[in-house]
Order: sequence, then structure tokens, then C-alpha cells
Amino acid sequence: MRKLSFDIRVPVIQAPMGGGNLTTPELVAAVSNSGGLGSLAAGYLSAREIEQATRKTRALTERPFAVNLFAPGSREPLSGDVGAQLRLLGPIHDRLGLDPPAMPDRVAGLFEEQVESVLAARIPVVSFTFGLLPEDVMNRLHGQGAFVIGTATTVAEAKMLEAAGVDAVVAQGSEAGAHRGTFDVPVEPPLVGAIALVPQIVDAIRLPVIASGGIMDGRGIVAAMALGASAVQMGTAFLTCHECGAAAAYKRAVLEAADDSTSLTRAFSGRWARGIRNRFMEASNRAGAEPLSYPWQNSLTGPMRAAASRKGETAFLSLFAGQGTRLARSMSAADLMQALEREIGDAITDVSSRAGSPTGRTAPA
Amino acid sequence: MRKLSFDIRVPVIQAPMGGGNLTTPELVAAVSNSGGLGSLAAGYLSAREIEQATRKTRALTERPFAVNLFAPGSREPLSGDVGAQLRLLGPIHDRLGLDPPAMPDRVAGLFEEQVESVLAARIPVVSFTFGLLPEDVMNRLHGQGAFVIGTATTVAEAKMLEAAGVDAVVAQGSEAGAHRGTFDVPVEPPLVGAIALVPQIVDAIRLPVIASGGIMDGRGIVAAMALGASAVQMGTAFLTCHECGAAAAYKRAVLEAADDSTSLTRAFSGRWARGIRNRFMEASNRAGAEPLSYPWQNSLTGPMRAAASRKGETAFLSLFAGQGTRLARSMSAADLMQALEREIGDAITDVSSRAGSPTGRTAPA
Repeated sequence: MRKLSFDIRVPVIQAPMGGGNLTTPELVAAVSNSGGLGSLAAGYLSAREIEQATRKTRALTERPFAVNLFAPGSREPLSGDVGAQLRLLGPIHDRLGLDPPAMPDRVAGLFEEQVESVLAARIPVVSFTFGLLPEDVMNRLHGQGAFVIGTATTVAEAKMLEAAGVDAVVAQGSEAGAHRGTFDVPVEPPLVGAIALVPQIVDAIRLPVIASGGIMDGRGIVAAMALGASAVQMGTAFLTCHECGAAAAYKRAVLEAADDSTSLTRAFSGRWARGIRNRFMEASNRAGAEPLSYPWQNSLTGPMRAAASRKGETAFLSLFAGQGTRLARSMSAADLMQALEREIGDAITDVSSRAGSPTGRTAPA
Repeated sequence: MRKLSFDIRVPVIQAPMGGGNLTTPELVAAVSNSGGLGSLAAGYLSAREIEQATRKTRALTERPFAVNLFAPGSREPLSGDVGAQLRLLGPIHDRLGLDPPAMPDRVAGLFEEQVESVLAARIPVVSFTFGLLPEDVMNRLHGQGAFVIGTATTVAEAKMLEAAGVDAVVAQGSEAGAHRGTFDVPVEPPLVGAIALVPQIVDAIRLPVIASGGIMDGRGIVAAMALGASAVQMGTAFLTCHECGAAAAYKRAVLEAADDSTSLTRAFSGRWARGIRNRFMEASNRAGAEPLSYPWQNSLTGPMRAAASRKGETAFLSLFAGQGTRLARSMSAADLMQALEREIGDAITDVSSRAGSPTGRTAPA
């Protein structure tokens, strides 16, 4: 038990960052080539786009990598205040030179075609968020030897994933950037910090646990290991890497952010997500208009976000990021992976050296 | 630098838990006698009560312990909806057999007399929350050799505390139970998780950092050390100890709580605090009435909380607790301290043993 059966030397998974082509084949391959596990975010991709991205990634690495999907249960019936959202977006579209915002008739569900594409490509590690996989999909993935990773934000969700047959569970702490993986119906979005969430999940299930949320360097990785995690998943740390497809303005915003500059919002996609506070989030809060449910809000704000990304207008971009922004670094993914590996060793040496001595009194200089 | 100059063998500070006589002399002394640092919560105590409590504690231990005060800036002018709060409390008072709720004319400020009492008792470690100490108080404490600890919830607050001359900073993660120590004016209450907050504060100041929030066992302590903390402060873990003065029903509620059963509320004191969701929190939310500012709301709900505590009615009690509730244990503080010491060793051994091997693949069974 507690074994990640795919082959990695450094216990680091680059998180599948969903929107706007962030997880380029170059990023995914660089992480896998450096001894970690890269992840291609495929939740918004068509079967054809998945096929292309996995082919490009395989041209750059012979190592295993993961593909991430959204569970089909992530789609909700339309709710929220359509009129108010259109009024909020109208002037912004105008300013960005876009046609007036329009409510889509429907938002295509991609899950079935995504699964076929992932199966056809024989992806070795398949992770997913926002719920449980249908049983037949889980069986088909396992049937071809895939390692399947689910995402939990509470002990209850971790137990549901274990019961559904996943091979490992990502414990997503409240610090994590972008979407909360929450799928069990909560009183309010559960926001348990990683230092509390990870050991509680480790104690509650028998599977390997992958810690995520606010982990940015070797100190965070060793902390997660001490909490009982078998590996970590890091998003924000890779967001500012050269190979990541994020707009330069987005990367700059992350590199310049303070530790408490993020908030949770439903303004961009309809699902709760953590991002750096900006004008659109504030305008949405001020308007007081209920965002639409997912995927409707996501589809509605798509043109704004794409245009803002092209123009480097961070005011209207979803600046998804976790709470460790002050530790973000601008470097290549290979350099970051090397730094992490070195820092893991340093942090272990530091902690071990303080074990024999009265740790309360002699602390690192 | 990074040295806690008071004498502890185990890097554990028992958190000053403020309300309802939780930090009994027996609890404080047991922690200090076991090699950690006990803390007497004196924020709500008169000078005479502080004098009595410290005398009783000294009769039980020769080891150092801390006294915790609220910074005077914690008091706010009256705001909120008095009428609505009285309407909310009326039926509850009735049910608990209390006189109808009444708005206090004034709530006495205790800070000046508390400081004189602490100085007269020559307390070796003085911690405080909710702001900065007046410069003259800091100077007088330092003048008699006290070690002074402030509380920060952001990097900005940690820097303000360092500039004000504290000797160490508690980094309070979002996981922490009871009141947020936040004092710098925020857009919204900052809720940075410990795994992200601690290393960012460690990098930003030169003082020893004490990690708090969701730390319940040796795994959490070693995680905090890996993040760069010199010690940890633990509240919820000591709340369920035999020596803690919490009502039996309160302890039971903590021992039975799930990982995601807490929320932040202003309903009890006017300040944001984390507690297990109960009927009063829900009734307050439903009523939609703005709680009064601190200390007014605290004073107004005092009779309800005291009666609920006496009667074991958890529906009307402030069940303050952090996010690590599933790890809470019912035992004596001395036994808990022994367990923590053993677990620290175990966690360090575990992390070190995984250093040489591919940690991603071989994880603890």
C-alpha cells in the first residue's frame, strides 16, 4: 500500500492547470524528464486536442506523464442571474473590442470523447477532479494498466474516492490555486488547510496521498512527507516557469503578489476557485449578481478571459494562483525541479539535525 | 537569531485559549512540566485574576510559562445591529432560563491593569494577539527580561511585529481554531494556510517563527519544522486534555467533529473566529443581522455562552476549534506531551528514511 506505482524519482507532480493552455507539452515533458510527473490538463480539451497534445508531449519525453480530466458530474444545470452577468460583461467586452456577450445555447460535454482519446493514447497516469469517474471508465482505465488519481478536499471525499477504486488521492488543501475539487455536497465550500487535511486523510484511507495546496519549495515538500504524503502536487510553482503557457502579464502578477492577495471566487467559471483579486472579481462582488453555474459561467466569460490574456490585461483575466505566491520563481521547469530536489535534501538534513538537540532552543540561523 | 531563549525541550507551546477558563493552571503547568511551554490566556482576566492564576500555576511548576494578553487596539467602537442581536438572543435566553439580554453601557478595558499584573508577577514569556503592544509596554517587558511573542496572519503583520521589537512571531494559519489574530486592515480576513504562511514569514523576517493552525501531532510538528518554524503552538490538541477547563460537552463535540465541520463566524465575539458549526452560528447567519463589533458582541453573548457551558448545551456554546479535529485525543496533557515527543522522533525517522530512496515510490505502509 501507499505506493505510487508509476516511476518517479522526485515526489513532485506538476498540477494539471486547466485553462488557457497552461500545461504545454514542453512543461509536462520537462517535469517528467526531470524525475517528476508532468500533467496535461485536458478538462477543456477535445479528443483531437488531447491526441495532439499527448503526441507532442511524447515527442519530448519517454517518461510517464499524467492526463487530467473533469469528472462528468462537474456539469450543473443552469442557475444564476443571466441578465446581471450580461450587464456586468457588456462594458468589459466593449473595452476589449469584443462583440457583446451572448449566452450560449448549450455548452458541449466533452467527457465521453475525452475518455476515448485517453484510452486510445494509453496514458499511464490519469487524474481527475470534481467528482467520481463512472465505474465503466474506471474499469477500462485499470484494464489497460493506468494508474488513476482522484481529488479530495475532505476526508469524506477521500473515502468516496477510495471506495470507487482510485489508486491514489490528491488531498487538496485550502491554499491551492484555481478550482476547488470539492464534489461532496457541503454546507459551504470546505477549506481545510493542507497541514490539517493531509494527516486526517492519511489516517482515513489506505491509499497513497498526494498533498497539494501552497507547496512551493523543498520545505513544503518535506513538510508534506512528514504529514504522511507520498508525493506532492504543485501548480503555482510551475505556473511561473518559462515553459508554462500562461500570459507574461499573468506570470508577472503571480511573481509580484503578496501572500494574502488571493480570494475564492465563482466569477470566472461558476465553480469556486482561488485567484489573485483583480478588477473583474471585485466588480462581480460589487454587482452582487449570482454567477451562473458551471460550465455556463465558464463559457460566458471565456471570450473576456481569452482577449484579456492576449492583451495582457490582468484586470479581466482569471489570475488563478495559490497562497504561496511570494515563493514563486521565474525559471525553467528543469531548473525548478533541480532546485526542489536539492531543497528536499536540505530540508531533511535540517529537520534531522534538530531532532537530537532541543529543537525549541536551537533553530536554523 | 531564530532562537527561542526560554528553556523548552519539546518545541511545543500550548496555545492561550481565551474564553471560559480553558487554560487552567493545571493545564499550563502540565505542559511546562513536560518540557513544553504552557500559556495562560489572560485576555479576559482582571489583574487580580491574573495574579491568582499565575500564583496557582507557579505552585504547580518551576518551569517557565507564558501569559497571553490582547493588544489594546483590539477594542473597536460599537457597530452592528443591536436590535437584531437582542431579538436573536431573546428566545435563547428564555430557553436557558436567563433574564432577557441587555446591551451593556460599556465594556471595561482591562489592558492597563493586566500589564501591571504581568509585570508585577515577572512573567518570563508574554505573548499577545490582535495587534501591537504600546512601545512603553514593550520596553518595560523587555526591561525585566521577558520574551515577547506577537501573532501574525500575514507576512505584512509579521513585519510590523518585527519592527515593533517582538522576540518571536506566531504565524497563525487559517486552520487555527478560535479568533483570527488579524490586525492589519485587510480586504477580507486573510486565511492563509500554515503550509504556505510559515515559509513566507520565515523568509520575510529574521525572528524565530512559531507555526500554528491545524497542528495536532508529531507529524504536524515536524512538518512545521521543515517549513522553517522554530516551534509550534497547539490549541485544539490541548482543548480535549483532561486538565483543560472546557465543558465536557464541548470536549465531546471536538472529539466527534469531522475535518470540515468548522466555519468562521463573528456571531460570538464580533471578531472572526473558527468554531464547530452549531445552532447559534446558523441562527445568526440566517438572521442576517450584522454582529456587533468586538468587545460588544462578546459581552452581549457572554451570559448565553456561560449558561450553555454550565448546562452542556453545545447549541449555544462557542465551540471554537481548529481544522484538525479528527486528530484530537482525550488524555492528560502530560500523556499528550509524551506522545508528541515520541511522534516527533518517529516522523523525523520516517522522513529521513525516505530521503535516500525514491520517495515517490516507496511510502510508509
